[in-house]
Order: sequence, then C-alpha cells, then structure tokens
Amino acid sequence: MIILGIDPGIAILGYGIVEYNGNSFKTLDYGAILTDAKDATALRLKKIYDELEEILCLYKPDAVAIEELFFNKNAKTAIVVGQARGVAILAAANKDIDIFEYTPLQVKQGVVGYGRAEKKQIQMMVKTFLNLKAIPKPDDVADALAVAICHAHTGRMGNIFKL
Amino acid sequence: MIILGIDPGIAILGYGIVEYNGNSFKTLDYGAILTDAKDATALRLKKIYDELEEILCLYKPDAVAIEELFFNKNAKTAIVVGQARGVAILAAANKDIDIFEYTPLQVKQGVVGYGRAEKKQIQMMVKTFLNLKAIPKPDDVADALAVAICHAHTGRMGNIFKL
Repeated sequence: MIILGIDPGIAILGYGIVEYNGNSFKTLDYGAILTDAKDATALRLKKIYDELEEILCLYKPDAVAIEELFFNKNAKTAIVVGQARGVAILAAANKDIDIFEYTPLQVKQGVVGYGRAEKKQIQMMVKTFLNLKAIPKPDDVADALAVAICHAHTGRMGNIFKL
Repeated sequence: MIILGIDPGIAILGYGIVEYNGNSFKTLDYGAILTDAKDATALRLKKIYDELEEILCLYKPDAVAIEELFFNKNAKTAIVVGQARGVAILAAANKDIDIFEYTPLQVKQGVVGYGRAEKKQIQMMVKTFLNLKAIPKPDDVADALAVAICHAHTGRMGNIFKL
C-alpha cells in the first residue's frame, strides 16, 4: 500500500510518500511545497494544487493521510491554512483517492504508541521506521511522514472520503 | 463585463452572476451550492469545486469577486470555511480568471456607498440595482450578488490573482 502523508500549510506544505508492505516501510519520496508570501493567494493555492496533482500522478497512492489542524486563537491564520488544506483535500478527491484525517494525538499514538510523545520522539521514530540517515527538514516534512506512518499502523481509522 | 460574486461557505455557498455594461446591470443567474453536513469533507469540497467549475464554464465571467472572511472566535469554523473558500478560489484560478477579494466594509461602501450600512440596506440596494422582484434568499445569495456589484462599482481594487 502506498500512502501519501500531508502536513498542510500555505507557506510550507510537507509531504511524504511511503510504501507499506507486511510491516515494513519503503520511503518513496518526501519534501515540501513552498509558496511565496509575496504571491497572490490564488497563485499560492494553485501551486499547491498543481504540485500535489503531479505527486499523485507520479506515485498513485492508495490513500492520503492528512493532519487535522488545531488553532487556539488566530482565526485569520486558521482561514489561510484552511484554504491550503481544502485545496490539498480536493487534489486527492479529484483523483478518487481515499482521504483519512488524523489528529495530532492520533499521529503520536500511531507512530510512537504514546499520545503524550514529544515532537523529537516522533521525529526519531520516523527516522527509525523509514531507515533514514537524518530527520527530514523542515519539521513539516517529518510531520507529513509521521501521519503517513500513522495511517499505515492504524489502518482505516478516520476515513473522511470514500466514493 | 461579466462578474461572478461568491459568498463562501461550506454548507451554503452563495453565487451571483451579473453583467455590467455602461453603468447598468443585467442579472444572469444566482443561487446557492448546498452541501450536506452528513457527507465527508472531501465530498463536500469536491461538490463545491465541481459546481463552481460548471458555472464558470457556462457564464465565462471576466472576473470573480469573493468576500473576505472574518471570524472573531471560532478557529475550528474558520478552518472549515477556509477550506471551502480555498476550493472556490482554486476553481477560478484553474480557469485563469482574475480574482478579487473584498472585505465586508468594502462591499458596503461599494454597494451602498456607506461603510456602516446595515444588511437590510445592502439587500434593498441589490434588489434595486439588479431590478429583482424580491431580495434573493438565503442571505448568502444576496451577499454574493452584493460583492459582484461592489466589484463592478470599484473596478480593479483588491486583485488577488493576476496571471
């Protein structure tokens, strides 16, 4: 099973593609889609959509796993990041790929098995599971890989899109 | 000039298409895209995108005008509505249509000429400008027509997407 993990954001959207077969992982690709704050919102959203579409065409994942977002205070930021998240979900929906969302708590439990794990612990587990030489940077990329691993481990929890 | 006005939302997205030539308006169409809260987020976003795409293909607007969203408190709602707004912006961007955004204050000034105008006043002006028999319902539809009128009156203010 090929899983695309996404950590949504407007300036940096982290992604990671892993193949999961019989309890072992193969890392196919990971990286970040970057958009420039000087560009118009629509251009930034279009860039995210287009680059995700390319990734989806290239790796044909069986599932997309995406982090749920939580904001305590800044509703303005929430709208902006929500826009990027909506476009990311649409890119997968337009390819009829099942989409699963996981809360940060679920990701921690799915990767480390412990809901109060710290960021550093998650990143170390990502490095270990995927047999990487270093923790991928920026954090958004490690987070995207973590949500992909979480989906591999927890299966069909939290499906938000089934045609 | 044909203008598509959008009042973004996830359960109800209002739209209105007007033609503006030499200070007079012709109303081409208006309505609401409705999505069911029982459906998965991705399905709802895809429905919004697909229906907007149909509208864009049918009326080929020269510009899209969309309301800026403001939330004072509920960041969770802001993310959800932001997702719908992102998808609406993308639908226009994918057709290379210029997108303009207007704050509620700008819409009031652009329609009634007075930033503190009340909702009812805006709706009466929409009805008058467009020569409608009644104020379109729900409010989201009247709001969408208002932002289209605002764009017609204020021209190229607030362009957020120019290829």
